[in-house]
Order: sequence, then C-alpha cells, then structure tokens
Amino acid sequence: MKVLIVHAHPEPQSFCSALRNLAVETLQGQGHEVRQSDLHALDWNPVASAADFGQRQNPDYLVYALEQREGVKAGDIAPDIQRELEKLLWADLLILNFPLYWFSVPAILKGWIDRVLVSGVCYGGKRFYDQGGLAGKKALVTLTLGGREHMFGEGAIHGPLEDMLRPLLRGTLAYVGLDVLPPFVAWHVPYISNDARQDFLRDYQARLLGLDQDVPLAFPRLDQFDDRLYPLA
Amino acid sequence: MKVLIVHAHPEPQSFCSALRNLAVETLQGQGHEVRQSDLHALDWNPVASAADFGQRQNPDYLVYALEQREGVKAGDIAPDIQRELEKLLWADLLILNFPLYWFSVPAILKGWIDRVLVSGVCYGGKRFYDQGGLAGKKALVTLTLGGREHMFGEGAIHGPLEDMLRPLLRGTLAYVGLDVLPPFVAWHVPYISNDARQDFLRDYQARLLGLDQDVPLAFPRLDQFDDRLYPLA
Repeated sequence: MKVLIVHAHPEPQSFCSALRNLAVETLQGQGHEVRQSDLHALDWNPVASAADFGQRQNPDYLVYALEQREGVKAGDIAPDIQRELEKLLWADLLILNFPLYWFSVPAILKGWIDRVLVSGVCYGGKRFYDQGGLAGKKALVTLTLGGREHMFGEGAIHGPLEDMLRPLLRGTLAYVGLDVLPPFVAWHVPYISNDARQDFLRDYQARLLGLDQDVPLAFPRLDQFDDRLYPLA
Repeated sequence: MKVLIVHAHPEPQSFCSALRNLAVETLQGQGHEVRQSDLHALDWNPVASAADFGQRQNPDYLVYALEQREGVKAGDIAPDIQRELEKLLWADLLILNFPLYWFSVPAILKGWIDRVLVSGVCYGGKRFYDQGGLAGKKALVTLTLGGREHMFGEGAIHGPLEDMLRPLLRGTLAYVGLDVLPPFVAWHVPYISNDARQDFLRDYQARLLGLDQDVPLAFPRLDQFDDRLYPLA
C-alpha cells in the first residue's frame, strides 16, 4: 500500500507528532511505502489566491475553482500544489494527522485541503461522493484533542465528535470519493500521564496493523438521487 | 452598535465582497460604527506557530493555547493578533463574511479563528458556551456557496447546512459565548443571474435592518451539566 501522511502540528516533540512517527514506522515495517507532508516543516502556504496560477483563464476576475481546473490541465498551477497533488494521486491511503483546533483542522491543514483538492481532478460536475475523483482510495483521520471522551456523544456537552467532524469526513474526504475509515482519536492529550499516552500509542499501532479490516463510514451515494440531485423516493 | 466584519474572499469584485460592501453601507447608514478585517487585503497570516509569541512560557515545547494565555497577559503576543483581538473585543456584533470552501471557512479565515480567539480571553477553564469570554456579543455568518438550496436539508444529498456548519456555529462562535444569529446564505452564486443576485442583496439588506429582531440559535448551557461536564438528569 502507498500511504501519504499529512501532518499539521507546530511542535515536533508533541504527542501528535509521536502518532505520526509511529504511523511511519509501523506502516513501513509492514512493507508499505510511506510519504509525508509535514506542513509546518514545509512552511506550507494555506492561502488560496490568484498567486496559485500562471496564465489565468480570466485575469480580471478570480473564480478559484475554475482557475484550478484550467491550471492543472495546462500544467501551470503553483509548484507546491502540483507536488502535493502528485503525492495524493500516488497514495492508496491518505492519513490526516493533526490536533483538533476549534473542532476542526488547523488552518495550515485547511489550506492544504483548499489548495490541493483541485477541481477537475478530485471533484467536479457530478463527480463527488462515491463518484468522486479519488474513489478507490482510503482516508484515515488521526487527531489529538484536549477534551475528555465523555464530553462527546449524544446528549454530551459537545454532541458526537463525528457531527463536529462532518465537514471534514463527509464534506471533504467522502465528497472526493475516498473511503473514510473511522477516525482515531486521542482524548485529553495535554493533561494525561505518560502511561495513558503509551496506551494510545499501543491502540494506534493495533489500529494501523488492522487497517484492511476497517469498515468505512457510510455516506450518500449518487444513485440515491436523481439528475438534479433530488432524493429518489 | 459596534460591528466588526471579517471578510475572506480573494476577489474584490466577487458577489461575496458585494455582500460585505452592502453590510458596511447599510449598517453605517443606520448609525452603527463599522470596522473591517479584509483578510486578503491584510495579507493575514493564518498559521498558528511559535512565531506568535515573544518571551515563551516554555521555549522548549510549544503548547499553543498556553502561550496564547501568557502572551496576552504579558502583552507580547504577535501585533497582528493583538490588533484583531482589540477589534473583536471592541465589537458588539461580529460578522464573518466568506465563500464556503469544503463546507467550511477558507483557511485564511480559519487562521483568524485559530490565532485571534485566544485562550484566557475568549475561553478557558469553565468559560465556554453561555459562560464564554465573549458572552453578551452577537455573531452573524454570511456566506456564499455554489450548491443549490435543495441539496441541503434533511434527506438532501449534503444534509442540513447547519449540520455542516456545526464546528463554526456551535464549536467556535457559541463556544466563546457569542449569541449566534441564523446564517445568511446566498445559494448557487457562481451560476445565477444578475437579477437573482440583486434579490440576495435586497434580502440581505432587509436582514441587516432587522438584526435586533433576530432570535439566536439555541446551544448548550453549562447549567445543564455538572462540575465534570456530565449532563444533569
């Protein structure tokens, strides 16, 4: 299996970074090929802007998705986007590894999503959800957070974590056609003992070793909707 | 009323920017004070990193929220954060004005959230939801998107838009104590006629003129939970 790990923690000694390191070792130990995009180390630019394009389709008015589509076709999209897109298309499994900021990805990772999941390749027209441009590949979200597990779930103060992650799991990863595996979550990380951290590392390793048995989450399929995307009866 | 509009579209001629312009005019016309943070015009840095702090509490290991708390207290947090935080604390109403990217805010705006909603001021300890640091202020989300209205809602292909916006509306704006007004949404913007755009502008103006009659969305209150944040029976 070819694996791309996109990592987005600013502290190389963090537990989040330890999860990334463990994934690299474990997956390589299983004979998988692993590539990484450590966004802070890359000094990744998260801002989608006109600077991402060479020759513009419309130099007077920026429609970002349109210029992405044309820029990729013409091969003159920004080189940092092109490099990441190639890694993404190479991979069979995408792992997003990050600390939860505001119940969501850090901006540096949001900017990887905004810029790299280009229109015309990853999605476009009726190519989304099960028909998305990355169909056949898998995605795993691995995250650390400060909250405790009992603060999430039905009736809990923040509700189910999967509901908070909906724009990422459904609106992004499933949207581009990826089979989205259940997230791996390390709870309450800044406050727990070293032993508790070791337990999470052991759990994560077991999870990584059993990835091929994971059942992806269920999301909409286009055959449940008509041509105008109204639900079929 | 004092209003801060945080705007995050890369194209000054966009319809999204026209909504921003209309809000400035309309609110000023009503006698309100309006300030703006046009993030692309500011060349806003969205990346939360060690560079945001002067004297570090722990120079060897970055815990971002901890350094925020201490940095704000000591008055040596990055000047761009300090400026935005002052505008935020000045405002009675925060308007986030943006195009929906991946069912979420663009990275440049996520980075405003990550960096400006500082721990120790906007939240911290038991100061969140109705007890959040910005309690007493209001927030309005104004967004443009490509999708059609019938693609959202119960049973629709993307589900309810409010569910996709949960990490923003509940996990961010309500979390810091803001009264979150129902979002203003302009659907299918890249594909509609100029007349349809004028209709959205008229609707938005009416909405802005009636803001004081808006009923905020309902979110959890801390008095529904015990000291350890388990739900009370």
